[in-house]
Amino acid sequence: MKSRKLSLIFLFFFVLLSSSSGKAHKRILRHKPCKHLVLYFHDILYNGKNAANATSTIVGAPAWGNRTILAGQGHFGDMVVFYDPITVDNNLHSPPVGRAQGFYFYDRKDVFTAWLGFSFVLNSTDYKGTINFAGADPLMNKTRDISVIGGTGDFFMTRGVATIMTDSFEGDVYFRLQADIKLYECY
Amino acid sequence: MKSRKLSLIFLFFFVLLSSSSGKAHKRILRHKPCKHLVLYFHDILYNGKNAANATSTIVGAPAWGNRTILAGQGHFGDMVVFYDPITVDNNLHSPPVGRAQGFYFYDRKDVFTAWLGFSFVLNSTDYKGTINFAGADPLMNKTRDISVIGGTGDFFMTRGVATIMTDSFEGDVYFRLQADIKLYECY
Amino acid sequence: MKSRKLSLIFLFFFVLLSSSSGKAHKRILRHKPCKHLVLYFHDILYNGKNAANATSTIVGAPAWGNRTILAGQGHFGDMVVFYDPITVDNNLHSPPVGRAQGFYFYDRKDVFTAWLGFSFVLNSTDYKGTINFAGADPLMNKTRDISVIGGTGDFFMTRGVATIMTDSFEGDVYFRLQADIKLYECY
Repeated sequence: MKSRKLSLIFLFFFVLLSSSSGKAHKRILRHKPCKHLVLYFHDILYNGKNAANATSTIVGAPAWGNRTILAGQGHFGDMVVFYDPITVDNNLHSPPVGRAQGFYFYDRKDVFTAWLGFSFVLNSTDYKGTINFAGADPLMNKTRDISVIGGTGDFFMTRGVATIMTDSFEGDVYFRLQADIKLYECY
Repeated sequence: MKSRKLSLIFLFFFVLLSSSSGKAHKRILRHKPCKHLVLYFHDILYNGKNAANATSTIVGAPAWGNRTILAGQGHFGDMVVFYDPITVDNNLHSPPVGRAQGFYFYDRKDVFTAWLGFSFVLNSTDYKGTINFAGADPLMNKTRDISVIGGTGDFFMTRGVATIMTDSFEGDVYFRLQADIKLYECY
Repeated sequence: MKSRKLSLIFLFFFVLLSSSSGKAHKRILRHKPCKHLVLYFHDILYNGKNAANATSTIVGAPAWGNRTILAGQGHFGDMVVFYDPITVDNNLHSPPVGRAQGFYFYDRKDVFTAWLGFSFVLNSTDYKGTINFAGADPLMNKTRDISVIGGTGDFFMTRGVATIMTDSFEGDVYFRLQADIKLYECY
């Protein structure tokens, strides 16, 4: 009787441990982020006339394009470098809590689609550190998901998914993105 | 006797748990991917004459190059943006299951070597979601490994390694890569 | 009495297991890297006169710049592709243990700030494999942290943080970076 009791305890832990080591392969932790941030960033593209305010500029273009005006055909091939203010609300004039630094390019001829590689460099009372992002941005979709591929400082080694949404835009010169950042690995 | 039996059970679990927590530092899970995909993507580079069919275009070039023809010296400095069809077999005309979106550039003067940053955006009955890749592509090697740095949708938070192989090419205009994608972290 | 003893053991393991599964969400393993490398890489930028020695070249530039000389205004918008020798000490002429392949761009108008995406392709008696990096590089800071986003070969699936330090520079043509690479996930 006593030994059977022990066997049960043994079995119980064995099952728990198996599922625990199984997690290394197929972890189920999608339920709740360990950190969650919602931030906005604002991109003002240089167009030859707005040097004082511009936060981004075209640096690469296809043979049929130039570096002052976005090319036709879905802006295909236009590559832009940016250093955009990040704010906690959707107001360009709010005090920035950091900068979004990186690049994006349009990669399709017929539909607006982009690809993004950038960092949130945060320096506020709430957060000091960087979050690094990469992924495809099919920008005609209301929301699209990109990967959080790493981080430093308060975001040391973090991973997750960021849902990007175009919150506003004005022609080709200004757009504002909302980034809903869900971090599932925190350290 | 009873207490010794308990000690042994205690020890047994302690050893198991130690190795389990040790895994966080040095995990040994190289044996078997949790997901495995083999896909092909097809790149048709714009050369001034193939605007209708081209899936990629030069957007950056060194001072001695231009954006219509790949430069000499290992194409060093040529940067290309692409939106390539992905197929399950090696036939360019098979129905695409998604698109490979991203960029590559040649980064060496004497030997063909590239660097890749891109996403597989999959939209088929089998898979909906994106896989993000980055890494060096020493393309004269038969196979080369790049990193899977994240994913979304069906590939939420995934990580792994993709083995890239040049399956075919025609001069500077067309190449087809096989991507053997081994995912070791699935959620 | 016996059953109380069992309960205690039960409780003990339960606590251990809870903390172990909790780790998946919030792992505390910041204490010690599983691998630690300190390496140097050397960048010689093409300036129109040094074709033989140059290891990097401007491939993208803003409308007001060109691809031979870095632009004014913090080099904002200049994009550079590189293939730089990696050495174990700070001597450019030491035998290279591999190459740093990738790109960087300057992304700010008033202060020198860059963004990096690159790989260390190592091929020495000590290491064979690649380490992939991405992140913001506020290069006026003495040290800055970027993310290790993956790896292959000896660095299969690795993650971590690299602390970059400008070890030396000569005008706009040469700089040497020390990379202190701390890997916290090894396989």
